[in-house]
Amino acid sequence: MNEKLQQQLNFLYEIDKLKTIFRKTTLITEAERFENSAEHSWHLGLYAIILAEYANEQVNMLRVLKMTLLHDIVEIDAGDTFCYDIAAHKDKAQKEKEAAHRIFGLLPAPQKDELLELWKEFEEGATMDAKFAVSLDRLQPLLHNFVTGGGSWKRHHIERAQVEQRMAPVIQGSTVLAELVDYLLDEAVKRGMLSDTRPKVLT
Amino acid sequence: MNEKLQQQLNFLYEIDKLKTIFRKTTLITEAERFENSAEHSWHLGLYAIILAEYANEQVNMLRVLKMTLLHDIVEIDAGDTFCYDIAAHKDKAQKEKEAAHRIFGLLPAPQKDELLELWKEFEEGATMDAKFAVSLDRLQPLLHNFVTGGGSWKRHHIERAQVEQRMAPVIQGSTVLAELVDYLLDEAVKRGMLSDTRPKVLT
Repeated sequence: MNEKLQQQLNFLYEIDKLKTIFRKTTLITEAERFENSAEHSWHLGLYAIILAEYANEQVNMLRVLKMTLLHDIVEIDAGDTFCYDIAAHKDKAQKEKEAAHRIFGLLPAPQKDELLELWKEFEEGATMDAKFAVSLDRLQPLLHNFVTGGGSWKRHHIERAQVEQRMAPVIQGSTVLAELVDYLLDEAVKRGMLSDTRPKVLT
Repeated sequence: MNEKLQQQLNFLYEIDKLKTIFRKTTLITEAERFENSAEHSWHLGLYAIILAEYANEQVNMLRVLKMTLLHDIVEIDAGDTFCYDIAAHKDKAQKEKEAAHRIFGLLPAPQKDELLELWKEFEEGATMDAKFAVSLDRLQPLLHNFVTGGGSWKRHHIERAQVEQRMAPVIQGSTVLAELVDYLLDEAVKRGMLSDTRPKVLT
């Protein structure tokens, strides 16, 4: 077998591990089963296809799809960091950067560079394609929490202000989806899924 | 919320169920854990991105990616049919057609039509984009079986001739990947992962 194809297969074997990285959000279908990052990435691809019309400016769907499919691959080495765990976020960026270089580095040169650049673009969130992909990545777990009656918000005593901060980038990608987020957070508070004030911390 | 967006969200909620449809192939990482069709579809998207250069003719990557992400959604209603179960294949086509109409039918009209057409195109396998997507869909479980030392071939006493028949469409999408399949089947037989003759059936 030629060396290039072998490198490509090794990458495809390696990323199988993303199916064993579990997130803090559950499925909608089975609210007791946590979602893994491979399933999440697949779902996000469909979010991109279905919700494309709500991007603030026209996006390049091929680039958006590639970003949604590869954005979490770094978690194979760096793990899934709970978005409300401030301490764990301290070295997240460095860990994920090293992971990106190792894992995309399994690929032959031009592909390695392309995927690494797309991952960086998603992380930086500066282009319209990245902004839209990021907005979907924030929206999807919110919908899972809402539809399952509170999900990780309830389990981890998260309050509305924390979710609002987490959702801040959505408006950069889509004002329509940001309005949806506001509506759902209002509803979540009304229905007792989400606390409107920070719970007291025992010291 | 506007009705169109609500329909789109309902579709995105509905397809979450694909994460609970299990295939006959296991993960590479955890050979005792069966892969679900959402994870498989995600993996296939990356196969398309990484192996595009081996398509027999240039493909439209956006269309190929959409096909890989949506091709198994019908299994939400129709279930995963084991590819070597001849009896179960009798009404597979009809069941899947009904599933496609119900599930893609949740979407507003232009999207419903687009996704339904892409799904049909994948099933018919007549265009170059579909041929390439189908070839990847055949290759991925073969690689999982090979890398895990036999997998579903061993569990279900499958013989080489059956796998060859299943892999017949690969050459339509990619002669390079068809050569890879031949090489891996030779190796699988040599290494005792796959029987070269049909095992005797007790009567």
